[in-house]
Amino acid sequence: MINKQFKLASRPVGAATRANFEYVEAAPPQPADGQILVKTLYISLDPAMRGWMNEGKSYIKPVGIGEVMRAGTLGEVVASNHASYQVGDHVVGNWGVQSYAAIAVDGLYKVDARLAPLPKYLGVLGMPGMTGYFGLLDVGLPKAGETVVVSGAAGAVGQVVGQVAKLKGCHVVGIAGGQDKCDFVVKELGFDACVDYKSGDLRVALKAAAPKGIDVYFDNVGGEILDVVLTQIRMRARIVICGAISQYNNTTPVRGPANYMSLLVNRARMEGIVVFDWAPRYGEAAKEMGGWLAAGKLKSREDIVDGIETFPETLNKLFTGENFGKLLIKA
Amino acid sequence: MINKQFKLASRPVGAATRANFEYVEAAPPQPADGQILVKTLYISLDPAMRGWMNEGKSYIKPVGIGEVMRAGTLGEVVASNHASYQVGDHVVGNWGVQSYAAIAVDGLYKVDARLAPLPKYLGVLGMPGMTGYFGLLDVGLPKAGETVVVSGAAGAVGQVVGQVAKLKGCHVVGIAGGQDKCDFVVKELGFDACVDYKSGDLRVALKAAAPKGIDVYFDNVGGEILDVVLTQIRMRARIVICGAISQYNNTTPVRGPANYMSLLVNRARMEGIVVFDWAPRYGEAAKEMGGWLAAGKLKSREDIVDGIETFPETLNKLFTGENFGKLLIKA
Repeated sequence: MINKQFKLASRPVGAATRANFEYVEAAPPQPADGQILVKTLYISLDPAMRGWMNEGKSYIKPVGIGEVMRAGTLGEVVASNHASYQVGDHVVGNWGVQSYAAIAVDGLYKVDARLAPLPKYLGVLGMPGMTGYFGLLDVGLPKAGETVVVSGAAGAVGQVVGQVAKLKGCHVVGIAGGQDKCDFVVKELGFDACVDYKSGDLRVALKAAAPKGIDVYFDNVGGEILDVVLTQIRMRARIVICGAISQYNNTTPVRGPANYMSLLVNRARMEGIVVFDWAPRYGEAAKEMGGWLAAGKLKSREDIVDGIETFPETLNKLFTGENFGKLLIKA
Repeated sequence: MINKQFKLASRPVGAATRANFEYVEAAPPQPADGQILVKTLYISLDPAMRGWMNEGKSYIKPVGIGEVMRAGTLGEVVASNHASYQVGDHVVGNWGVQSYAAIAVDGLYKVDARLAPLPKYLGVLGMPGMTGYFGLLDVGLPKAGETVVVSGAAGAVGQVVGQVAKLKGCHVVGIAGGQDKCDFVVKELGFDACVDYKSGDLRVALKAAAPKGIDVYFDNVGGEILDVVLTQIRMRARIVICGAISQYNNTTPVRGPANYMSLLVNRARMEGIVVFDWAPRYGEAAKEMGGWLAAGKLKSREDIVDGIETFPETLNKLFTGENFGKLLIKA
């Protein structure tokens, strides 16, 4: 039993590289009274992780230098000093990029491998799923017949946003990088259309895919795509700001949306979300989405990379767009 | 009786200059059946006018080349072919930058010079007043004890926003250009504080004036000031996008708010407004604000320039910040 860990060694400038982490191999820790020892099975890789490496105030405190890199995790209990947790239980938590952790049970929850494949508990049934579900429904406020556009459409959050919007009777357009991803969201997930932002004129393609204009835009990417969308919103449109993956590795200032005055022309709204705010209601979403999943009405694709050792390079697949579906490491 | 008119001759690049207008002197027109002839007494000069000179889709169609420049107006009926309008009546409308107009009465309303000085009907009791009142209350949603910040604080809209926010029990901070304007909004209008954006470090001064952070920001200016405010908003802040006067004369692309991801960190909202949407409720606001005005609880300052001939240069006072209070031309 070796505990492989990635600790943040320095704050990245631009993309995070292997040099920003210290890779450590150590003996697994011992669980104290009331704690459990978990063996990591899957590590969730999320765009937000890049932000957590930055110094300064955000919605969550930065990872400290020398600390294990924060990440969503799913593991198996291998030793327990807590009456409610048995060896063999599967749990989801945030113990970070390491193969073992001795942890208190606050903030953990158990998942059932018989109800869904384990990786889905970090994707469609985990934080990305909750983000898409609540961000779309509570802030995007889509009505049947409206046009919903989502960027990062083939990603962990985007897949959920688009499918939930379809279930609510909307015309759904994805924006994704590459024909494969576009084919996937249309043919596999049932989106009405998908625009490949890497090919041709985004403005023209989006207009063709959303001819009536855009009522709800769920933004995972920021940058140029947000600016183009702003030129095509309808009156009283709602823009959900979930992320800005195009800007996270910037070494130059973030590109603000130059077309933001379209909010005025169209009496539209741009609102930011952080999924933690819905924590009291995760159960509600998990139940509804679990039902859809079981009924085949909600699909999801995961991109699973083997080996915790690959962490820095695997993380960067998010920012180059090389991942296809919810990105995970199988530890 | 000479009808002095400014017609839009070409679309400005950057600031509008005299060369963008054709100045015409003609005989006043004759009112047709059902029309009235009005003599212009006051012309309202508003930042939005710059936008109306641009080609392209906005919330209102552009002024056509060769058309009289659109403007809010207040005048006196000098001839009437309409039973409801008598010579001597004072009316508010949008007949533009000309000293006489023969017009239909749709969209006109009468005002009473005995209840308030006429210029106030184009300011605090006119469109700017309605904009401040509804934008603040319906979109800003200020609660007693919250901190409200308004830019263009000494301007036609800003004066109303700040005073209404005070009446609702908020801590009110203005942002204005120059010590005179700051003194005015604090000493005359009762704002709690005012930051002079032309002097010192805006970030530091704003932090000192709004130490608990900003719950509501009513933005008339855009640009750098919007970006600084974004770094100081509180959780669930509301940003009302009313204008972006710092950007209207740009010959380079509009500066988008680079710090917009603060909306995510703070689960905050940015929403655009156009006053026309509240037209069915203008009466409600006029009644409440008229009451405050009569009771001395709502003050306003106008900046009245003599002579319709000065129009192009007077308009530009808005963009250089030389106006002090609601800018009007006395025709």
